[in-house]
Amino acid sequence: MELAVDVRHSRIAADERRAFARPLRRALERLDADERAGFLRALHRPALLREVRDFAAGTRRAWADVVQLGIGGSSLGGHALCRALLPANHNERSGRRGPRFHFPDNVDPESFGALLERLDPRRTLVHVVSKSGSTLETVAQLHALLEAFGSRRLPPLRERIAVTTGASGALRDFAESEGIPILTAPADVPGRYSVLTASGLLVPALCGVPIGQVVAGARRMEARCRSGRGVGPAGQLAVIHYLHDAKYDRSIHVELIYADALLLLGAWFRQLWAESLGKRGRGPTPVTARGTTDQHSQIQLYTEGPDDKLYTVVRAERLRRRLRVGRRAPRALAGRDLGAVFDAEARGTAAALRSCGRPLLELRLPRIAPAVVGELLLMQQLQTALAGALYGVDPFTQPGVEAAKQAALRILERRSR
Amino acid sequence: MELAVDVRHSRIAADERRAFARPLRRALERLDADERAGFLRALHRPALLREVRDFAAGTRRAWADVVQLGIGGSSLGGHALCRALLPANHNERSGRRGPRFHFPDNVDPESFGALLERLDPRRTLVHVVSKSGSTLETVAQLHALLEAFGSRRLPPLRERIAVTTGASGALRDFAESEGIPILTAPADVPGRYSVLTASGLLVPALCGVPIGQVVAGARRMEARCRSGRGVGPAGQLAVIHYLHDAKYDRSIHVELIYADALLLLGAWFRQLWAESLGKRGRGPTPVTARGTTDQHSQIQLYTEGPDDKLYTVVRAERLRRRLRVGRRAPRALAGRDLGAVFDAEARGTAAALRSCGRPLLELRLPRIAPAVVGELLLMQQLQTALAGALYGVDPFTQPGVEAAKQAALRILERRSR
Repeated sequence: MELAVDVRHSRIAADERRAFARPLRRALERLDADERAGFLRALHRPALLREVRDFAAGTRRAWADVVQLGIGGSSLGGHALCRALLPANHNERSGRRGPRFHFPDNVDPESFGALLERLDPRRTLVHVVSKSGSTLETVAQLHALLEAFGSRRLPPLRERIAVTTGASGALRDFAESEGIPILTAPADVPGRYSVLTASGLLVPALCGVPIGQVVAGARRMEARCRSGRGVGPAGQLAVIHYLHDAKYDRSIHVELIYADALLLLGAWFRQLWAESLGKRGRGPTPVTARGTTDQHSQIQLYTEGPDDKLYTVVRAERLRRRLRVGRRAPRALAGRDLGAVFDAEARGTAAALRSCGRPLLELRLPRIAPAVVGELLLMQQLQTALAGALYGVDPFTQPGVEAAKQAALRILERRSR
Repeated sequence: MELAVDVRHSRIAADERRAFARPLRRALERLDADERAGFLRALHRPALLREVRDFAAGTRRAWADVVQLGIGGSSLGGHALCRALLPANHNERSGRRGPRFHFPDNVDPESFGALLERLDPRRTLVHVVSKSGSTLETVAQLHALLEAFGSRRLPPLRERIAVTTGASGALRDFAESEGIPILTAPADVPGRYSVLTASGLLVPALCGVPIGQVVAGARRMEARCRSGRGVGPAGQLAVIHYLHDAKYDRSIHVELIYADALLLLGAWFRQLWAESLGKRGRGPTPVTARGTTDQHSQIQLYTEGPDDKLYTVVRAERLRRRLRVGRRAPRALAGRDLGAVFDAEARGTAAALRSCGRPLLELRLPRIAPAVVGELLLMQQLQTALAGALYGVDPFTQPGVEAAKQAALRILERRSR
């Protein structure tokens, strides 16, 4: 019962892929020596997981809501885990285990203000995540939240805030001055690779996700990749994506996701892939599409538009819930499970893409379960780091983000004078 | 106070654009004669709007929830209007005007089943939208919902369902046999151009959106385009997008949206653009990005990746809500409105893209108000239809969607034997 990676229709011949086995092994060796590739080593530091569990177990208050403040990589990972592994209506259920989760992930005053309005400051735990401790949006979110909550008659900040940050920085200083508990953002794990540390695990743990199983699945995938000749499925996928872009001019990588629970995992991968590889005038453009919804729009482009894309269909072999289509429906549907309709649509799309000669990968999750999701997360992180080696770029930096950041800061400072 | 379309940084010279004025006028004339281009004529048929208003006014029951069943173009338009023009927490507020809205837009049994579980069948109005009346997913949604709701002691279907469909088809037959009210899906308006008909207007109207103002804004934009030399802003945008793709090899069209309320308008445009233009081995790939969230990922790719994209920054000049950043924040932020931070980020991103020489368009909404959103919808529909003429493809068909549909149906029928 493990994640199935099907590359039979990738249109990259096995020979062509095998030629990369040695470069991939070498890339993995370099990763093992790279002081920024801690996303692999972090899986084997029990203290990191223990810290998260201890905090979750030790927080006595019965929280109604947990809010994670953070942007991009410091928000998407935990959000994706909650959406994948908690029931679809977790936040709306009255009998839920654990608090509601919120990942605002933006500084839009309309949506952020609307969220704050609904929260009871006494029953809301705030988790602030910024590795550097100075991310503009995260700091703005925090101080807008504190202002909106006010302070009169509320418990001290240290009882209702937790911070995940690096060894130094403004956020750590603030937390220390208030006695706010601080969880570890490991120095060797860049933000977008941090999903399997406190940054991505704390809120899921508080809401009832068995995070130990997620990490165990990630470890299992790591072992599978290390024992594979060309670094296993992560290596295979890195090569196929790289060749389609660099050699066959298919620079758009589409992930078609047939499971609403997995949509945010697609968004998580999209940011990881774009931010890690888009450098020095190169880099693929990732696109996430929702099946079946986007069949009635994007599929027109995909089957009859230009042949400039590599497609990955992601689906689950078994869904938790069954839902019967009533007897009055037309013959093909009557009495069927809605999941069978969903599945037929996914297969139909894959068949249509294949019959147009489009290159196609399939990722099949036996179930949407913690360990399988852990496998997927680790595989896609390793695939990204290995692709960096093939592209000849550093997958752990983001110099281009700085320019926009600095420009925004100059605009703000100009106006505050 | 109208939608501002800023093309100064498009990197297409005014001369080059002006050369298209005559072809665009001719394309508009052909549209006016095209029996599928009813999205323009529908604005001037008061009976269509009246029908929606009469239904909304005449439905006596106090609905708690309204669910629209439909896929892609038959769901996104109405959903986008609700999200843009109702308060961000409309569905969560106790004192809301009008029912909660739901646009499931998929056949995932997990998410659809979770929604059904939360609804009270007696207090839920169901709006079923399919122009052909035979869309597989929509029919499956309807009959799964009826099965889950059951029938014992519930009012008859005609009191809790409304249907929007064409002049014939299975959905019309079903509705007529049950006496269910039927609203018009005009024969000359293909599904993805139907946002300003009952398909896109009924649920917003029920939830409190002043739909007359939306349509009035659309009419205002139509007049603005008709009186412009090269069909106004719709023509300008069609030419700029077309040239960047066909002449300058920038085949990826990115819409960066700085307002959470407008995100679904981006998804709506994405399907319109892809499904209308992706044909005969050509067609641009639309991408939607969320500001500032995606600044910490996509912007790396956008500023330092390949120069294969045209960017459109969408933002609102004034937001409804103010949210103060507390005094303890760093100097650039302390005491500022969060909206000013958001705005500085949007400007900073635009500046970073310009300074890398990337082509950039800006759409600025004076406010996120019904008439302005109506302007945007009509402009983007007309832009799409005109772009079809420039690309030499028919923007009103979707032959490629059929192949995937037929493949799915074969799979379903094979298994039901």
